[in-house]
Amino acid sequence: MPSPTKEGTEAGATIEEATRFSPKFGPDGTLPAVAICAQTGEVLMLAYMNDEALARTLETGEAHYWSRSRGKLWKKGETSGNVQKVVELRTDCDQDAVLLKVEMIGSPAACHTGRRSCFYRVAEMGGAADGKDGSFGPLRFVDAERLFDPETVYGAE
Amino acid sequence: MPSPTKEGTEAGATIEEATRFSPKFGPDGTLPAVAICAQTGEVLMLAYMNDEALARTLETGEAHYWSRSRGKLWKKGETSGNVQKVVELRTDCDQDAVLLKVEMIGSPAACHTGRRSCFYRVAEMGGAADGKDGSFGPLRFVDAERLFDPETVYGAE
Repeated sequence: MPSPTKEGTEAGATIEEATRFSPKFGPDGTLPAVAICAQTGEVLMLAYMNDEALARTLETGEAHYWSRSRGKLWKKGETSGNVQKVVELRTDCDQDAVLLKVEMIGSPAACHTGRRSCFYRVAEMGGAADGKDGSFGPLRFVDAERLFDPETVYGAE
Repeated sequence: MPSPTKEGTEAGATIEEATRFSPKFGPDGTLPAVAICAQTGEVLMLAYMNDEALARTLETGEAHYWSRSRGKLWKKGETSGNVQKVVELRTDCDQDAVLLKVEMIGSPAACHTGRRSCFYRVAEMGGAADGKDGSFGPLRFVDAERLFDPETVYGAE
């Protein structure tokens, strides 16, 4: 197995040990991108990137994503002003996911609901959470304070 | 907009404010699951769960995933012994991703390469990383020490 620190050609290197970034996008042309706070390491959000979003992120140092619901490239903060400055971008062993260390410019809230993180609800462990009725049980709100008013920032729906 | 702490019926609650866990699986029946260390908050890995993997995780308190490459349910640690005890499971605003706070049982290495985290390579920012040749530039190994030998644990390929 090649040395993890060895530079050189990719001949024979597995995807896990490769020294070139050759991301594996999924069938829809995207891969998941996890954004964490560069200072605290908190997980802020998970979104998706296609090749263009990834290229623009690497070129500009500002996070760009692909909106699967709107079918368009999306610069984080283009509406809210809450841009994500990318301090570091990592890929994983299989090169089918990326991790971004970001500094939030403007509000520290990364979630479109105005919250710091998109992960503000805890699912109950144990019990009959079998999903047979389409539900996996109750959710409990934590760290759910709103740091901005989404209606003010994005307009009423 | 409903109060974030309000319990009650789901009538009229948006997916973002819902108090029931009704995960939105993708077209392939899975959603991404990010595992972080319960003690340090480090991002360890990103894998996928289908409804069965999610149900078993909630029921047993041990992380189960869906292997997209092998097309089967997979209990983390079933081969390596490095089980993930799930301390907390959160969902995100759109309920189409989950975040697991885990305690690693056995080795602290979550990656099948023997490393602590799957995110052990940094992509170079800036430059002509346009992906036009299928590559987005060089990768640099960081935090890439192997904590176990994958050949010993999983056998030679």
